[in-house]
Amino acid sequence: MKRRMRKSYFKTDPGAPAPLSIIVERQVRFEEVDPLQIVWHGRYPSYFEDARLALGNRYGFGYQDFYRAEVPTPIRQLQIDYLGPLRFEERFTIEARLHWCEAARINLDYRIRNQKGELVTSGCSVQMMLDRDFEVLLNPPPFYQDLLRHWQAGELS
Amino acid sequence: MKRRMRKSYFKTDPGAPAPLSIIVERQVRFEEVDPLQIVWHGRYPSYFEDARLALGNRYGFGYQDFYRAEVPTPIRQLQIDYLGPLRFEERFTIEARLHWCEAARINLDYRIRNQKGELVTSGCSVQMMLDRDFEVLLNPPPFYQDLLRHWQAGELS
Amino acid sequence: MKRRMRKSYFKTDPGAPAPLSIIVERQVRFEEVDPLQIVWHGRYPSYFEDARLALGNRYGFGYQDFYRAEVPTPIRQLQIDYLGPLRFEERFTIEARLHWCEAARINLDYRIRNQKGELVTSGCSVQMMLDRDFEVLLNPPPFYQDLLRHWQAGELS
Amino acid sequence: MKRRMRKSYFKTDPGAPAPLSIIVERQVRFEEVDPLQIVWHGRYPSYFEDARLALGNRYGFGYQDFYRAEVPTPIRQLQIDYLGPLRFEERFTIEARLHWCEAARINLDYRIRNQKGELVTSGCSVQMMLDRDFEVLLNPPPFYQDLLRHWQAGELS
Repeated sequence: MKRRMRKSYFKTDPGAPAPLSIIVERQVRFEEVDPLQIVWHGRYPSYFEDARLALGNRYGFGYQDFYRAEVPTPIRQLQIDYLGPLRFEERFTIEARLHWCEAARINLDYRIRNQKGELVTSGCSVQMMLDRDFEVLLNPPPFYQDLLRHWQAGELS
Repeated sequence: MKRRMRKSYFKTDPGAPAPLSIIVERQVRFEEVDPLQIVWHGRYPSYFEDARLALGNRYGFGYQDFYRAEVPTPIRQLQIDYLGPLRFEERFTIEARLHWCEAARINLDYRIRNQKGELVTSGCSVQMMLDRDFEVLLNPPPFYQDLLRHWQAGELS
Repeated sequence: MKRRMRKSYFKTDPGAPAPLSIIVERQVRFEEVDPLQIVWHGRYPSYFEDARLALGNRYGFGYQDFYRAEVPTPIRQLQIDYLGPLRFEERFTIEARLHWCEAARINLDYRIRNQKGELVTSGCSVQMMLDRDFEVLLNPPPFYQDLLRHWQAGELS
Repeated sequence: MKRRMRKSYFKTDPGAPAPLSIIVERQVRFEEVDPLQIVWHGRYPSYFEDARLALGNRYGFGYQDFYRAEVPTPIRQLQIDYLGPLRFEERFTIEARLHWCEAARINLDYRIRNQKGELVTSGCSVQMMLDRDFEVLLNPPPFYQDLLRHWQAGELS
């Protein structure tokens, strides 16, 4: 079953800074494999999260950063496109990319590649930054606006 | 954070039979709740699966039916829209609906409602019916074509 | 592989009230099954928890009761004896029994039976009742002492 | 809540070779943490498994080795002693040790230490080596007997 990846999950302005990205490595664990000998489709949100948290920790918008700012950032939308399977003990990489967005919103896409470098899964998540009453913020919190400024100035790599 | 549900995940012809549906009841388990005291977003594929399997078992296109026909039906696409949270020990319902499709493809959408009847999550999944070489079938297997005939004849309810 | 169940996980005084017990019903879910087509051994703590929470809710020593009393009750010891497998979609029962103990300690044992009524798993858990500094309490909190009194008086069934 | 570790889960003859061991490193993932902000007790079988599989792969008695020999090795007993908590993003180590045993039985114990090197969890598992009728083997399969010979000869380290 050959399939093409969706070209892009998010539209970005031509002048926007390039995405911030990270690649993490993992290996399929026994408990993640289903009776059909492939990773159960419901494990992939957890794979995406591994890369999302690593990306946040590298660039200063991690779980703890938002927690300290008292800004919950629940997942509002998740989409997963399964192109091929992963099997027990297979090594793979998960890439997460943060796409430029000035609103109180976190747009990430993901790409999982197997040992041969083949794209086996892609997907995206959308998170909203909320205030204490769980209303969407008008603007990102100060620490995130700093991050946006550095990003736009080309100071993040 | 108020949000509207997507109107529909699948386009269907005006003359197509109405979806086959089921509603299952569940209660949030302790291990499904995350440090923010809400169900972790990655548990919802499992909730959808509960309703999907129940629907398949009711109408004869369950996991075992496809297994006997030697037709794998991997999930190819999954989409989840989170509208509101679920909390520990909260009771909720999951509705799964099979949408009419004559191709070797299973189009389902899902709606999770909390105890007040509020829609808290919606989503969809797309599965492909494959042959032994993991190529997409030209047509559904005989048992599924029978199901389609009965469905179209209005004999399923 | 035939094996006998351990006779008992806890020693109790001859004059102690009989255990409080509950039986809950469940069905094996797809994601709980491993590549060997049996329930992965690591899912059983979750099965035990289902019965433990149901028992606590019935007799007034549930998660919320301890939470309101600000008494954490972490699991200190867990033991599981696997006597036979469970398979996909198999229905089974989980029995949890609270054994009499006047200390700040919760002693439970568990028995899982398959559809034929065969014992397939047994086990036990030990929880300690703690204060806010995470030291073991000298005595159970008042609400639990009430429960012990009613239990000893034969008023719980 | 200070507690001592059990001195030992298995009795071994004085003349038996020293255990084979491995230490793997991990970090607590978000989905492993419960509403009380500590790792849910039911995740530890998965931590033990990480070290068990790594040990098996290093010394040639991994999942695939037994699979090729057509010898299922189900877990028959699991015991976990929780001495202290692990928290979100905490790094920790899991040590697995295989204890000498000439029967068709795999005796492992486990020790989890937090970043400070404190022992936070210990435990053990017992697996039986079975034939195709799921009866316990009289002796381990040839490849495992080779391993025992090399181990006893001091050729494994």
